[in-house]
Amino acid sequence: MTDADAILAANAAYYRAFATGDFAAMSRIWAIDGVSCVHPGWPALIGRAPILESYRSILHSANRVRIAQRDETAIVAGEEGRVLCVEIVEGAALAATNWYRRVEGAWRMIHHQASPIAVLVEDPEPPPRSPTLN
Amino acid sequence: MTDADAILAANAAYYRAFATGDFAAMSRIWAIDGVSCVHPGWPALIGRAPILESYRSILHSANRVRIAQRDETAIVAGEEGRVLCVEIVEGAALAATNWYRRVEGAWRMIHHQASPIAVLVEDPEPPPRSPTLN
Repeated sequence: MTDADAILAANAAYYRAFATGDFAAMSRIWAIDGVSCVHPGWPALIGRAPILESYRSILHSANRVRIAQRDETAIVAGEEGRVLCVEIVEGAALAATNWYRRVEGAWRMIHHQASPIAVLVEDPEPPPRSPTLN
Repeated sequence: MTDADAILAANAAYYRAFATGDFAAMSRIWAIDGVSCVHPGWPALIGRAPILESYRSILHSANRVRIAQRDETAIVAGEEGRVLCVEIVEGAALAATNWYRRVEGAWRMIHHQASPIAVLVEDPEPPPRSPTLN
């Protein structure tokens, strides 16, 4: 597995923890030190305690939103790497940056920031028609 | 000068290039490789060419906005470091992340993302009264 593949797998695990509301998994995904997080519309959170507290309330909320991620691009250099991707949240698109550092062989998240995209440029081509009727 | 001081100086240079509309300085600030940028409301730009093209049109725009930065926090680990800060743009606050990598002894920007803060939590204390009348 290349470093890019490993970071994309870590990124998928992040969204899986979000989708399943798994706070224990989320807390393992985040590194211990040197972490920062900017949720959409929020000021920056700096440090593990406020970041995990934010995820605890987001993941345990009765109104927890669904997030679908797509268009992942990984950029890796040495012991750090990031994934740029688009999050689709309730029909709106956000540009997300998820940054990871290799800690004792595992890629841990050190930064997350998601910001609304004013206009999502959709592919001008219509999707191909399904060859089957269903 | 500590690494944190050096990164804060690089960050000040970024906003100075913005304030003075100095595209040549901006192009030196950005690293050559592994760069990404999310302007407010934009999708992610990946790679030096589209990023510099975006700054060229922003810096040369007749409607170029003024950006004041404040509340800078530097987080440095090895050859990478970031500055979290608040940008004030036309009365609105944005949470900005500016990421740098040490390249041949100089801190070059490898990522910028600024996202609107829905509500800026202001200091509840009123500013001290000026001791002079003017």
